[in-house]
Amino acid sequence: MTQLHGVVPPVCTPLTPERELDVRSLERLAAFLIENGMHGLFVTGSTGEVAYLPDETRYRALEVVAGVSAGQVPVLAGVIDTTTPRVIEHAKAAKAAGADALVATAPFYAPTHPLELPGHFRAIRAAVDLPLIAYDIPVSVGHKLPTDVVVALTEDGTLDAVKDSSGDLDGLRALLEADVPVRCFSGSEVLADVGLFLGAHGLVPGLGNVDPAGYLRLYEAARRGDWDAAKTEQTRLRGLFRLIHVGDGRMGRYSSAIGAFKEGLVARGVLAGGTTSEPMIPLNETERDAVRQHLAVAGLL
Amino acid sequence: MTQLHGVVPPVCTPLTPERELDVRSLERLAAFLIENGMHGLFVTGSTGEVAYLPDETRYRALEVVAGVSAGQVPVLAGVIDTTTPRVIEHAKAAKAAGADALVATAPFYAPTHPLELPGHFRAIRAAVDLPLIAYDIPVSVGHKLPTDVVVALTEDGTLDAVKDSSGDLDGLRALLEADVPVRCFSGSEVLADVGLFLGAHGLVPGLGNVDPAGYLRLYEAARRGDWDAAKTEQTRLRGLFRLIHVGDGRMGRYSSAIGAFKEGLVARGVLAGGTTSEPMIPLNETERDAVRQHLAVAGLL
Amino acid sequence: MTQLHGVVPPVCTPLTPERELDVRSLERLAAFLIENGMHGLFVTGSTGEVAYLPDETRYRALEVVAGVSAGQVPVLAGVIDTTTPRVIEHAKAAKAAGADALVATAPFYAPTHPLELPGHFRAIRAAVDLPLIAYDIPVSVGHKLPTDVVVALTEDGTLDAVKDSSGDLDGLRALLEADVPVRCFSGSEVLADVGLFLGAHGLVPGLGNVDPAGYLRLYEAARRGDWDAAKTEQTRLRGLFRLIHVGDGRMGRYSSAIGAFKEGLVARGVLAGGTTSEPMIPLNETERDAVRQHLAVAGLL
Amino acid sequence: MTQLHGVVPPVCTPLTPERELDVRSLERLAAFLIENGMHGLFVTGSTGEVAYLPDETRYRALEVVAGVSAGQVPVLAGVIDTTTPRVIEHAKAAKAAGADALVATAPFYAPTHPLELPGHFRAIRAAVDLPLIAYDIPVSVGHKLPTDVVVALTEDGTLDAVKDSSGDLDGLRALLEADVPVRCFSGSEVLADVGLFLGAHGLVPGLGNVDPAGYLRLYEAARRGDWDAAKTEQTRLRGLFRLIHVGDGRMGRYSSAIGAFKEGLVARGVLAGGTTSEPMIPLNETERDAVRQHLAVAGLL
Repeated sequence: MTQLHGVVPPVCTPLTPERELDVRSLERLAAFLIENGMHGLFVTGSTGEVAYLPDETRYRALEVVAGVSAGQVPVLAGVIDTTTPRVIEHAKAAKAAGADALVATAPFYAPTHPLELPGHFRAIRAAVDLPLIAYDIPVSVGHKLPTDVVVALTEDGTLDAVKDSSGDLDGLRALLEADVPVRCFSGSEVLADVGLFLGAHGLVPGLGNVDPAGYLRLYEAARRGDWDAAKTEQTRLRGLFRLIHVGDGRMGRYSSAIGAFKEGLVARGVLAGGTTSEPMIPLNETERDAVRQHLAVAGLL
Repeated sequence: MTQLHGVVPPVCTPLTPERELDVRSLERLAAFLIENGMHGLFVTGSTGEVAYLPDETRYRALEVVAGVSAGQVPVLAGVIDTTTPRVIEHAKAAKAAGADALVATAPFYAPTHPLELPGHFRAIRAAVDLPLIAYDIPVSVGHKLPTDVVVALTEDGTLDAVKDSSGDLDGLRALLEADVPVRCFSGSEVLADVGLFLGAHGLVPGLGNVDPAGYLRLYEAARRGDWDAAKTEQTRLRGLFRLIHVGDGRMGRYSSAIGAFKEGLVARGVLAGGTTSEPMIPLNETERDAVRQHLAVAGLL
Repeated sequence: MTQLHGVVPPVCTPLTPERELDVRSLERLAAFLIENGMHGLFVTGSTGEVAYLPDETRYRALEVVAGVSAGQVPVLAGVIDTTTPRVIEHAKAAKAAGADALVATAPFYAPTHPLELPGHFRAIRAAVDLPLIAYDIPVSVGHKLPTDVVVALTEDGTLDAVKDSSGDLDGLRALLEADVPVRCFSGSEVLADVGLFLGAHGLVPGLGNVDPAGYLRLYEAARRGDWDAAKTEQTRLRGLFRLIHVGDGRMGRYSSAIGAFKEGLVARGVLAGGTTSEPMIPLNETERDAVRQHLAVAGLL
Repeated sequence: MTQLHGVVPPVCTPLTPERELDVRSLERLAAFLIENGMHGLFVTGSTGEVAYLPDETRYRALEVVAGVSAGQVPVLAGVIDTTTPRVIEHAKAAKAAGADALVATAPFYAPTHPLELPGHFRAIRAAVDLPLIAYDIPVSVGHKLPTDVVVALTEDGTLDAVKDSSGDLDGLRALLEADVPVRCFSGSEVLADVGLFLGAHGLVPGLGNVDPAGYLRLYEAARRGDWDAAKTEQTRLRGLFRLIHVGDGRMGRYSSAIGAFKEGLVARGVLAGGTTSEPMIPLNETERDAVRQHLAVAGLL
C-alpha cells in the first residue's frame, strides 16, 4: 500500500432490473478496468452507490471484484457508515470478502467534532488490520477533514492515504507539503491534471469507469511531466464529463451522474443494463440517447 | 396512530462499559418513562444513538422497549439509514421487533433532490405496513423537508406524522395550516411550548428522558390553554437543558448532550452507567458533577 | 427610548418612475402609518431599500419622515453600511436629518470575527449620541449576532434594543431571559405572535406598510394576553404575506416582496407608483393584479 | 484593457495613526510596486480595506495611485457597494479620480437572484464608460458568480475581465474554456501557479504588496512554461503567506491578514505604520515580531 498510485476508479455497481447485484456485468466491468491499465479498483465508493446497497450486496460486490482481480491490482473497499461501530462491522466484512485496503469517511448524520475524529479512525485501524484510507468528502459528511488531523493520523500510523473529494486544492497542497508519508488521491474528474500537478499520487475518477484509457493517458502524461498533453487529455475528459447533466431539471445531479456512467458502460458493451438504486430517478430514453451522443463525440463508440 | 399525541421522548440507549446494550437499564428507563405518563416511546432516534448502534443492537433495543410497553403506549422505531433500500431493511426488522410505527428521515450522505423524496417515502411505506413518520432533521441530512412534499405525501396516505427537528417554526406552522391530517411533533426541548402554541400534536424532547414529568406538565398546561403555566415550565426546562453544555470545549455538542442525558439518568437512579458510543468523548468527573448540579438546581435529585 | 415598544414598521421608500425619491408619496405613507396607530417608524431599513439608496436619498427620506412625524412617534434610522467608519458617517447624517435612534447591523462584506463586534457597536455609540439598536440579520451579514455579545453591549450601555430578523427564536428567548434591559423587536411578519408570546417588546414587520391595522390588532391582542385573537390575526396576515411570492420564478424573492409591498400601497391609494430600485426586476401587470387580489382577499380594498 | 495581464496587486491603503489616509506611504507603496514590475495596480479592493474606507478616502487613494502611475501601468478601481445605484456613484467618482478600469462585485446585503445580475453589471457599464471587471468573491457577497452569466455579459460587451476570488478552479477553467474574450485573474495567493497553469491571464494577490518580486518571478516562470520554477516560487510564497495567521485566536482572519500585510510593508520600509481600520483588532508587538520573522525567513529583510 505504500506504493499505491495511479488511476483507481470507484467501480460502478451494476444492478439487474430487479435491483439485485448483476454479477456478470460486474465481472465484465472489473476485467474491463484492469485490461485498461487501472492501477487499483475502489469498490463500494460513492460512485458504486454504496449508500444505497444493503450490506449483503456491498460484500458480494467486493467478493466479485476481488475474485476478478485475484491479486492483479489492489482492491479498496469503501466502508461507509454513520459512525465508528457501524464502520467497524463493514471493515470486518470487507476484510473477509477480500479487500486489500479500507476507505472510511468521517462520521456523518451524527454531528462530530474535529476532536472526535482521531478516535474514529484509530478505532477502525485497531479493529481491522488493513491499510486505511481517509475519504474526505464534505458534500456527504458536511465538513472537510482538517489537514492537521490527517497529518497526526499519518504520523501515528493510522492512515496510509487520503482520497480527496473536497475540491479544496489548497488543502490538498498543504497535505502534500506536510512532511508525512500520506499518499494523496484526487477524487476530481475535472481537475485531475491539477491534482497531479500539485503532486498527488493518483486519481479516483468516477468517469474512469467509462473512459479508463483517457485517465490513464492523463496520468502517464503527468508522470512524465508532459503537462500540455495532460491538459489536452483533461480538456477532452471535461467535455465527456458533461454527460452527467443529461438529467438536469428532472432529477438530482447524483441520479443523473450515476445513471449516465452506467448508461455509458451499457453503450460500451460492458454492462447489461443501467438500472440505478431507489430513490434515484432513472434516465429516460432521450437522456440515454444524450449519453451515447457524449460518448460518440468523445470517440468512445 | 391517527391519535398519536403528547410527549414521546426519544429513548436513550443504555450501554454497558463494554458498549453492549444494557438491557436491565433500558427496561428500567422504559418503565420510568411510562410511569411518568409519556404518551409513546421513540426508540433508536438520534438521542438513542441510532447512528452509532450496530443493527443487532438497534433491533434488540426495540424488542426490549416493546416488551416493557406491552401495548401500554405506542412504540416508534427510528429506521435511520442513508437511502431507501437500507431503510427498508431496518423497517422490516423493526416491524418484526415490535414497532408500532416507523420514523424515517430523507436520504443522507447521497445527495438527493426534492423530486426524489416522494419515491423514498412511498417505497418505505409500500414495503412495510406500519404508520410512517417523516423525521425532518436538516442538521443531520443537510436540508429541510419541503412542506409541499410532506403535504403531498400525507394526501396520498404515505405519511401519518412528522417529527420536526428543523427549528423552522414557520415551516411547522405552514404544515399545521395545510388542510391535511398530518400529525406534527416538535423535536425542540427549548421551544416546546411554542410548538404547542402553534398547534403541534406533541413533543419529542431528548431531555424528556431526564425530566419526563416536566414535559408532561408543559404539555398538559398547553392542552388546557394555560400558556403562562406552559411558559413557566418551559423556562425551568430551558435552565435544565443547559446541562448539554457541560463538555463544551473538550468535545462536540452531541457527545456533551448525550453524555449529559445519560449521566442525568444515572443520577436519578435509572441507568447503571453513562457510557456513550465511539467516537464520542466521555464526560469526565468534573463534567458529571456539573450534570448532577444541574439536576439538583432543577429539583430532580 | 427605554419605552420603545409596539409596531414599528420598516417604511417603504417610494420612488418616482425615474427612481428619484417620491416625497409626496413618502409623506402620505408616513401619515398613513401614524394614523393607523404605529408606535414608531423605521426609515432606511431593508424594506426601505436602504441597500439601494444613494446617501442623499437616504438622508432626504429620513428628513421627510421626521418632518411628518414631528415628534408624534419616534423615528428610527437604519445606518447600514459595511463597517464602522462608513456606518459612523451615516449615523452623523441621520442625527442631522432628525433621527431619534439608530439601527446598525454587524459589519458585512468584510469578514468580521465575534471578538470584533463590540468595538464596532461601541465606536458607533461613542461617535453619535443617539440610542443604538442592533439589527440582527444573518441573511444579509452572514452570521447571527451572538447573544453574549448583545448582553455585554447592553450591560455597558452601548445598545438599547435589538431588531431580530434572524429567525432564531431560541436566541430571541435567550436574550429575553438574560437579566439586561435590552428591548427586543421581532422582524418576522409570520411569527409576530410567537415573538410577543416569548416577551418581545414589539414588531418590525415589512408587511406593516400594507396592513398596519392588522399588526396593531395582533399586538394589542397579545398585550392583553388574548392569544387566540393574536393567532387569528396572525393567520390572516400569514395569508396576506403570500403576496411576496407573486414574482416567484421570474425574479428574486426580494424583488418580489418589495415590489408587492409597494404595489399594495399603490392599490390602497397611498403611493403614486410601485417603482423599485435597480437591479430589482419590476412586477409585471399579471403580478400586480395578483397583489391586488391578495389585498382584496384580506379585506384591504 | 484587452491586453490586461500579469501581476496586479490589490494595493494596501496606508493609514496614519489617526486613521486618515497616509498619502506619503501610499505614494511610496505605489512606486515600490511599479518598480518591482507589477503590470497594474488595483486600488480600493478588499485588501485595500475598501469596505472600511469612507468615500472621500477611497477616491483620494485612487487619485494618489493614479498620480504616481501617471500612465505607466493601468490603475483599476474597486467600486464596491451593496447595489447598482450606489456602485454607479462610486464608478463616476472613480473615473473622475483617474481610474483606467472598474472592478465591481455582484450586489450584496440585499439578496439578489442570478436573473438580476445582468441588469446590475449592464447598468454600471452603461453609466460609466470604462472597462468593467467582475469581482467574483463569494466569501463577501454570499454566492459565486455563475459562469453562464459571465459568459453572456462578455458576449454583449459588458465585461472585459473577471477577478476570481471564489476558490472554484473548476469554474475558472470553465470560463477559460468558454469561447469568449474574457480575461481571467486569479485572486489566490496560494494557488497562483495553478491559476496560470489553467490559462489565467494574471494574478491579483494581496501578498503581492509584500513580495511583488516573488509573484513576478512566479508569473514569468509560468509564462515561459517552466512549471517547476513556478511551483518552487509558489511554495516559497505559500510559506510566507502563513504570516496571515499571526493574530489567530485573538482576532478575525481578516484583521490578522491585513495587519500582517501592512506590518510587512513597514518592515520593508515602505509604509510609515501598520494602522488598520475599525473595528479590526490591531496586531500587538508579539504578532508584529512574528510578521518580521516570516519576512526574514522568506529573505525579504
